[in-house]
Amino acid sequence: MKFTIITLFEEALRPYLNSSMMYKEQDKGLLEVEFVNLREFGLGPHKSVDDTPYGGGDGMLLRCEPVFAAIESVLARDKDAKVILPTPAGELWTQQKARGFAAEDAHYIILCPHYEGYDERILELVDYQISLGPYVLTGGELPALIMVDSIVRLLPGVLGGETSAEIESFSEEGLIEFPQYTKPAEFRGMKVPEVLLSGHHGKINEWRKANSKKAAY
Amino acid sequence: MKFTIITLFEEALRPYLNSSMMYKEQDKGLLEVEFVNLREFGLGPHKSVDDTPYGGGDGMLLRCEPVFAAIESVLARDKDAKVILPTPAGELWTQQKARGFAAEDAHYIILCPHYEGYDERILELVDYQISLGPYVLTGGELPALIMVDSIVRLLPGVLGGETSAEIESFSEEGLIEFPQYTKPAEFRGMKVPEVLLSGHHGKINEWRKANSKKAAY
Repeated sequence: MKFTIITLFEEALRPYLNSSMMYKEQDKGLLEVEFVNLREFGLGPHKSVDDTPYGGGDGMLLRCEPVFAAIESVLARDKDAKVILPTPAGELWTQQKARGFAAEDAHYIILCPHYEGYDERILELVDYQISLGPYVLTGGELPALIMVDSIVRLLPGVLGGETSAEIESFSEEGLIEFPQYTKPAEFRGMKVPEVLLSGHHGKINEWRKANSKKAAY
Repeated sequence: MKFTIITLFEEALRPYLNSSMMYKEQDKGLLEVEFVNLREFGLGPHKSVDDTPYGGGDGMLLRCEPVFAAIESVLARDKDAKVILPTPAGELWTQQKARGFAAEDAHYIILCPHYEGYDERILELVDYQISLGPYVLTGGELPALIMVDSIVRLLPGVLGGETSAEIESFSEEGLIEFPQYTKPAEFRGMKVPEVLLSGHHGKINEWRKANSKKAAY
């Protein structure tokens, strides 16, 4: 599994990817994350990557030339890599989509738009337009990290336990979670439900089913 | 507007918050982001913050004691601060919610759960349970950044132009975006729609309305 993240802000993203779980996966060779600096493909002496919108409007749009050049520099090394564009008008990212991407073991290029948007013609090179949810963000950097995180944790061996994946499993009706408790058995008068201390697996499973919470969507 | 992020992974988050737009806002005094290291409230010589779940199951859960102590250390300084918990079973984060939070100019404490989950009793201190979307993530760190980003960009003065906010506006039916184009007028045979070059604002607005894309949710 390989991700190439095309961004102007590698320094903002790399520390997250180098931390905690993902670093270990990269170590194990399960995962490779590389960055391509969009600025290197900028135009003129200032390496400009954006310009004002035709027809008026505030803000700057990513231009075609640097975006095409950056994506094509990756495709020249791996013509089968797929291009993902985080955009509010894309298809909603779901656990089902994450599973699909995790199963493919492919090379994904994630283009992070920034500024106020991008020239529509870049869609010519895009395989997947993805929205993370019904809210607006400053850029595509956080969506890129979310996609990588939700895919990587589904790779075999990453969670370190089949049960964990199961506990957080999406049923057909949506995500199901049940309340969990750890030590101490009593904290400030709040007690762990007795059935969980019983050791009776059948009753514990019944209680978990009866008390599970559905995610809000 | 102030955010206190309670996490075990400050070093993974701070570079993002110190980059680009947010840094400037912090400079201007519009925004304050502070971190509280959950580890400092850990138990015993190893500063442990988690333990195994009662009733069985893989993974570790955040314990009550360090979480309560960390949150209460912030509430002791500001009793009006509100506690946000990113969790898949929470209410879906939306642009409308971001607007509501941005309008309040309050102090929000975001608790980032990690590991496989948290002891249910910590909900006692939580004001808002929030889900970022129908997918599972490794921890609450990326949701924390998403919430901060989507709120901060709505603060007065951050976008730098009323039109930008309007262009990305959510109508009552959901997010509306229209295709945008910048120079060059022709790229590899792909031309910018002529109406956008016309300078005729009425026709440009008509075209944008007719070609707008609804977000996928």
